[in-house]
Amino acid sequence: MDGDNNEAKGKAGDQVMQNPQALAALQDRLDSITHSPCVMDSLPPPVRRRVKALKNLQVKSAHVEAKFYEEVHELERKYASLYQPLFDKRKAIVTGAVEPTDEECEWQSDHEDEELADELQNKASIEEKKEAETEGAAPENPKGIPEFWLTIFRSVDMLSDMLQEHDEPILRHLQDIKVIFSGPGEPMSFTLEFHFEPNNYFKNTVLTKVYKMKSEPDFEEPFSFEGPEIISCEGCEIDWHKGKDVTFKTIKKKQKHKGRGIIRTVTKQVPADSFFNFFNPIKVSPDSELDEDSELTLTTDFEIGHFFRERIVPRAVLYFTGEALEDDDSFEEEELDEGEEEDHDDDDDMEEEEEERDSKSGEAPPAECKQQ
Amino acid sequence: MDGDNNEAKGKAGDQVMQNPQALAALQDRLDSITHSPCVMDSLPPPVRRRVKALKNLQVKSAHVEAKFYEEVHELERKYASLYQPLFDKRKAIVTGAVEPTDEECEWQSDHEDEELADELQNKASIEEKKEAETEGAAPENPKGIPEFWLTIFRSVDMLSDMLQEHDEPILRHLQDIKVIFSGPGEPMSFTLEFHFEPNNYFKNTVLTKVYKMKSEPDFEEPFSFEGPEIISCEGCEIDWHKGKDVTFKTIKKKQKHKGRGIIRTVTKQVPADSFFNFFNPIKVSPDSELDEDSELTLTTDFEIGHFFRERIVPRAVLYFTGEALEDDDSFEEEELDEGEEEDHDDDDDMEEEEEERDSKSGEAPPAECKQQ
Repeated sequence: MDGDNNEAKGKAGDQVMQNPQALAALQDRLDSITHSPCVMDSLPPPVRRRVKALKNLQVKSAHVEAKFYEEVHELERKYASLYQPLFDKRKAIVTGAVEPTDEECEWQSDHEDEELADELQNKASIEEKKEAETEGAAPENPKGIPEFWLTIFRSVDMLSDMLQEHDEPILRHLQDIKVIFSGPGEPMSFTLEFHFEPNNYFKNTVLTKVYKMKSEPDFEEPFSFEGPEIISCEGCEIDWHKGKDVTFKTIKKKQKHKGRGIIRTVTKQVPADSFFNFFNPIKVSPDSELDEDSELTLTTDFEIGHFFRERIVPRAVLYFTGEALEDDDSFEEEELDEGEEEDHDDDDDMEEEEEERDSKSGEAPPAECKQQ
Repeated sequence: MDGDNNEAKGKAGDQVMQNPQALAALQDRLDSITHSPCVMDSLPPPVRRRVKALKNLQVKSAHVEAKFYEEVHELERKYASLYQPLFDKRKAIVTGAVEPTDEECEWQSDHEDEELADELQNKASIEEKKEAETEGAAPENPKGIPEFWLTIFRSVDMLSDMLQEHDEPILRHLQDIKVIFSGPGEPMSFTLEFHFEPNNYFKNTVLTKVYKMKSEPDFEEPFSFEGPEIISCEGCEIDWHKGKDVTFKTIKKKQKHKGRGIIRTVTKQVPADSFFNFFNPIKVSPDSELDEDSELTLTTDFEIGHFFRERIVPRAVLYFTGEALEDDDSFEEEELDEGEEEDHDDDDDMEEEEEERDSKSGEAPPAECKQQ
């Protein structure tokens, strides 16, 4: 269901006709830009009245459509259980719990794949060799498929944008991502579960992110309804081992005592970019308006949630091999204003009290409350 | 369901890194372009073998997904009957068979609408006045909503591209468009029914276009499966009244007798652009390959069929008022190479035997067989 996050972008308004001879074209254009008021206004009152009756029927239609999408959600729940054995098998192979049989590993178009591989190999071989040298050669028969999920995180733009170097060793322990749909009668939602093997970074074995959805036309704008929409999300507490929390970094600061002029150096913890901020999204309180940055951060978060659910979890292996990457035009995130990230680690500006928070890292506890 | 007609467009291949210092960025880029062979080739053979097992699981997934979409189709059929009473009421109001009650015509945000109207009215008023002058004033209380469907055809780019002046008086008689889904157990398809009131142009009361669909992963490319796809379409015979067929036009030709050099003038019928060519689409025979033009024509036809089904029929009034027009970014047809259309009506080139056929008008009977 691609109904979520549909952007309403007018195409017709992009051009303004300057040529006075192109009146017919202008009329067409005006029709498509301002049709609503023009048509309605130019209609005789009895006809306008009838059009309003049609609009009321259209609102009823939107409510029927909402029910339709609820049933689609039910259907997705039903199919989730049909996919599950396949996903479980995937996990077993990825983690090395199961070794697939020869028959299971026979791939139909092996020959073609290899031809393509040879061709493209040339382009990449130099870089690959470099990488191999710095990382050391991989063992010839490791367990399962090492770095399966990490490779996906690296390959998909939407995820690699969040990925930091310090996240990578942690994501090597990621064993599975699951999508759990809300049950019948429950408010519509889905939960992403990130399953980790025991590791030295945090105690959790599962990190979760819940996306709450709404399949209901808005009273004010019933016609903008296009199916279920993500309306909010909730992360989880990560129980980091001491000193391992990558969502914070230690900086040294020099402080100058106002009266005595003595300079002292203090260390403090400030929010750091990390994929793991995904589990600590911006909190939206019902009474406060979000600023533009937060709005964008949240929209991106919803897109990422949707992308995990619709693409990455259902077809992970294709992101691992790269086969899915070219099909994802429609899922590309909006262009973000990335800005150069400043590294404050060796920052020794005097009397600086507040750190700028990166717009992507979401809400985090105030820097002062987590000294280590 | 937006799964149909998904275009696979790679974004990653657009740029080539020239800067030798940006090796890391190049690596990223290579990863996303050529990940498939790189990843597979760089893997130790036992790991590569396991990835193939995952790909086989993925094929199984695609087949489960196909079943899911079949059930969604069933659900759409079920909901079609829930929408039908609303659509029937719409038709009754449009044609004037029923006059809606005051209560049915009370529109929630009348006030706002009118403010917006005033604002935009200024921009359009000059053109509107012009139009009103040329067309003559409309009666103050006509029957139903005159030109309801024709207005939609004029407003939606995808349809107005097909619309010719000679089509307009015919489309004034269009009373309803229906989508009929194939029944359970039948091959998946949908039929567009165009219902006309009795008119002087053709004898049919319903013109139909059937779109056949496939919800099945391709054996060669199982991973490109994204849900049901339109695979072919079929129009209908239009039983035109004598001299009323707008899909042909009469041209005069001068012919020179090769031996005697005598010039004579003959009239003949050649295909003409018209929306009604929609009911005579290109026929695809299983053994012949389509040329690029025909391929594009057919793709556009499928998009139009999809658009009627997904947007225009379910929310016609919003296309009439213009409210839906700005939401249709995702449905925009591909940019077509439109080219200037030549008008051959007064063409007097000597010895010309063949007319160029407009690429959009679809297959039509040879010009010679329909002299009137």
